[in-house]
Amino acid sequence: MIDGALLIGGEARQAANRFTAVNPASGETLTPDFSSADTDAVAEACALADAAFPIYAATDPATRAAFLEAIADNIVAIGDPLIERAMAESGLPRARLEGERGRTVGQLKLFAGVVRQGDFLDATIDPALPDRAPLPRPDLRRINLAVGPVAVFGASNFPLAFSVAGGDTASALAAGCPVVVKGHPAHPGTGELVARAIQAAVKAAGLPEGVFSYLPGETNELGAALVSDPRIQAVGFTGSRGGGLALVRIASERAEPIPVYAEMSSINPVVLFPAALAARGETLGREFVASLTMGAGQFCTNPGLVLAIDGPDLDAFVTAAAAALTDSQPITMLTPGIHASFEQGVDALASHDAVHTVARGKVGDGVNQAVGAIFQTDAQAFLADTALSHEVFGSSSVVVRCRDMAEIAAVIAGLEGQLTATLQMDAADEADAAKLVPVIARRVGRILANGWPTGVEVAPAMVHGGPFPATSDGRTTSVGTLAIARFLRPVCFQNLGAALLPAGLGDDNAWGIARRVDGRREASPR
Amino acid sequence: MIDGALLIGGEARQAANRFTAVNPASGETLTPDFSSADTDAVAEACALADAAFPIYAATDPATRAAFLEAIADNIVAIGDPLIERAMAESGLPRARLEGERGRTVGQLKLFAGVVRQGDFLDATIDPALPDRAPLPRPDLRRINLAVGPVAVFGASNFPLAFSVAGGDTASALAAGCPVVVKGHPAHPGTGELVARAIQAAVKAAGLPEGVFSYLPGETNELGAALVSDPRIQAVGFTGSRGGGLALVRIASERAEPIPVYAEMSSINPVVLFPAALAARGETLGREFVASLTMGAGQFCTNPGLVLAIDGPDLDAFVTAAAAALTDSQPITMLTPGIHASFEQGVDALASHDAVHTVARGKVGDGVNQAVGAIFQTDAQAFLADTALSHEVFGSSSVVVRCRDMAEIAAVIAGLEGQLTATLQMDAADEADAAKLVPVIARRVGRILANGWPTGVEVAPAMVHGGPFPATSDGRTTSVGTLAIARFLRPVCFQNLGAALLPAGLGDDNAWGIARRVDGRREASPR
Repeated sequence: MIDGALLIGGEARQAANRFTAVNPASGETLTPDFSSADTDAVAEACALADAAFPIYAATDPATRAAFLEAIADNIVAIGDPLIERAMAESGLPRARLEGERGRTVGQLKLFAGVVRQGDFLDATIDPALPDRAPLPRPDLRRINLAVGPVAVFGASNFPLAFSVAGGDTASALAAGCPVVVKGHPAHPGTGELVARAIQAAVKAAGLPEGVFSYLPGETNELGAALVSDPRIQAVGFTGSRGGGLALVRIASERAEPIPVYAEMSSINPVVLFPAALAARGETLGREFVASLTMGAGQFCTNPGLVLAIDGPDLDAFVTAAAAALTDSQPITMLTPGIHASFEQGVDALASHDAVHTVARGKVGDGVNQAVGAIFQTDAQAFLADTALSHEVFGSSSVVVRCRDMAEIAAVIAGLEGQLTATLQMDAADEADAAKLVPVIARRVGRILANGWPTGVEVAPAMVHGGPFPATSDGRTTSVGTLAIARFLRPVCFQNLGAALLPAGLGDDNAWGIARRVDGRREASPR
Repeated sequence: MIDGALLIGGEARQAANRFTAVNPASGETLTPDFSSADTDAVAEACALADAAFPIYAATDPATRAAFLEAIADNIVAIGDPLIERAMAESGLPRARLEGERGRTVGQLKLFAGVVRQGDFLDATIDPALPDRAPLPRPDLRRINLAVGPVAVFGASNFPLAFSVAGGDTASALAAGCPVVVKGHPAHPGTGELVARAIQAAVKAAGLPEGVFSYLPGETNELGAALVSDPRIQAVGFTGSRGGGLALVRIASERAEPIPVYAEMSSINPVVLFPAALAARGETLGREFVASLTMGAGQFCTNPGLVLAIDGPDLDAFVTAAAAALTDSQPITMLTPGIHASFEQGVDALASHDAVHTVARGKVGDGVNQAVGAIFQTDAQAFLADTALSHEVFGSSSVVVRCRDMAEIAAVIAGLEGQLTATLQMDAADEADAAKLVPVIARRVGRILANGWPTGVEVAPAMVHGGPFPATSDGRTTSVGTLAIARFLRPVCFQNLGAALLPAGLGDDNAWGIARRVDGRREASPR
């Protein structure tokens, strides 16, 4: 059911202010129109979340995990209307959205497993040492507790996997935090369908209604009010650098500043090492264009920068890439605004004195279509103008011709923080790579070899993060099980009696979790 | 040797600008005078730290642990001159400083053990699944890497345990980060002795000289330059709210913002539950004054707020506390500035319309002496004026008379973030306490029962942290082994060959550490 309501706790309510969504493939306005949440709605949702917090945070692992799984089941149960609405609102193709739904459901189930396992609690016990001299040691027990209500800002480019029930929501709910979602205005119908699935799961589980609220809207005031609300204790965001930094600033100016986990901006350098380039430059060129143009390049991990030593092998790569791009079809972008920004970014590169346009993709006759672009320049020009290292969201990339490996290292050391860096290398490149990897590791969250950065595995070892401005907080990840750590805080209990300890810290280990006792951690139980 | 030098990497150098230290017990200026580091010295130290970083961060656990132990040994080897200088510069008594030296050395050795064990690396491996459908899973390996050079600002109140080689330095070095210490101007001779001990350990271990630099000084410009330096990647600070917030602001305004771990301000509420108060109010009153006046109350965890239900049992507590405080001796404070702030804070409370002075300690004839103070008010007055909840650093505390447990809960829920909260409770108080603990847990880093908050154990389960403004980052601790997490960042390696992986992630597990494989963590090896 899509009727344009706000979902505040257990209620669905229409607001006076309305907005509409656009089908980016046709430019047509979609029906129905949608409620735009105002600051009163924010206050109400946050009050409900605050009231729900102590009860939800204290749920046992089985209850919380079953709730996450019920959300997943409810999303699947929506069936094809969810896919069709998401196609209409995003311009993304069916196969992609079906895959994304699988990832969304898989994330929720993965976090259910994380909750049941209990390792994320980092339960730690230092037993009392009453006979220690000169002073006895008290009984000390530490556990990670949920931080409080969390605000989630969905991303436009993953209307399912990084939106209403996406990675931020799944990890915050797994941590024990109620969630207030600011719904993205680009896909409000998709958002409402998913939000109703969560709302139904809250009700069915008998949890307090404030565990989840959904506030669609298109105003900056809505987001600002949400981050300013004193009951919100952390923020998850995926989107533009400007948007993320605005939320960081608001959060830092609160009477009680809070963490903002904003995943913002990355150009994801790809280094083509000499032997690999010599052996398979043409293949690499074709693969590069496939990664660059997939989904109109609308991925945080899109390869926006290619670094290699100048010469005929690089020429062969560029020629193959140019041929592949020239044959590439135009692809509808997510929104008219994203398309306009892409065009602006591409135009700026195309008109830059030190930049040469290598190739463009095919031009179509639809609206809001990305026409891929590959540019090239040299390392000195790239280092001389930081504008050349700014993200152009979409299928645009810059090949930087370098004199030698040292110049490649200098370009990488001068980059802002990145989500990923990719090494295309053969065995003969290993010595060069070994020198470069420590340089790269200081600037990125993930280093990958002989693949392409698009495609982010949801797994325990994944890091989808990185130094500023890839994210506003490079100590964490927004994809993978470690994402739960963003919404936790350690608390120590000293000499508290059994009745007052969190269940995870009692002598009986009621939850059967792995704990660290006297500094030694037990193996995971499952 | 104390000659007033800056220590920049392996060098000792005199600066033109000088400052002196004062013996707070006598008001006399101590010799020699000391170099005050300028911004050139900051830049030089940071450049050396940056150059040292890749080498130091890549040290194996045995090398790094032995280095930490060598620092500890070198500090012990200074012998009595260290204690005597610290006594002269801080006014603290010998026994306290000998104990603090033990804690300082113990912390370094504890972190050596943490480094050898390797659990802090959180090494995680998701083996490749080449046959997975629809897409294979790549080989993913994640490990915590050191963030880069760290700036440490020592505290005045722990001239050994939270200064040059204190908890922040020990945990940053353990993480693999070079450290640049901004030396506290209140104890520059003590600082120099310890700094030379670290410098000697760096040299003896054959590590790059930039692993450690020591920059004493008394200007705000020095600290600002250090936090602004683009090579610094994290900051550890213990001190005033004003000082900590200034550093947070500077760090957030950098081109690349960095985390600041500032431990700042806490009044550490103590709740006297009804049964405990009835059974042992007088004893509690005496114990409270012992905790309040210890070390002139110059502890972050000093009990500055007492909450209890109004009535004759609370009267008995207050009467006993008043008697004990009236008999208490004046104690020299750490610096003239801290003494002046204490007097100002006490005067403000004493002249507050809604506050009654219960008792003061004995007045002495020395300079810079804290005369303890206990005040009382009621909950409505306390809630009406946030000034009453501001920290007065030193032996000053406010008893708040409440109508019932609900009013106690309201006072706690309205408090800013705190390092600790203390429950004085008997068995009959358990039901009341069970209701209050979740309320308290939202506002503090540590909850303790039937003890006093002063005295912070250095252990795996300790949390010396808490929501703002107890700290600027409530997700961590500055005391205990978890403090190492402040200076680490996860990085993922995807499909990298064995030669390019950090040693902790190789198939051979060269360091013999516990790892998480396919989501299940192994037990600690030692």
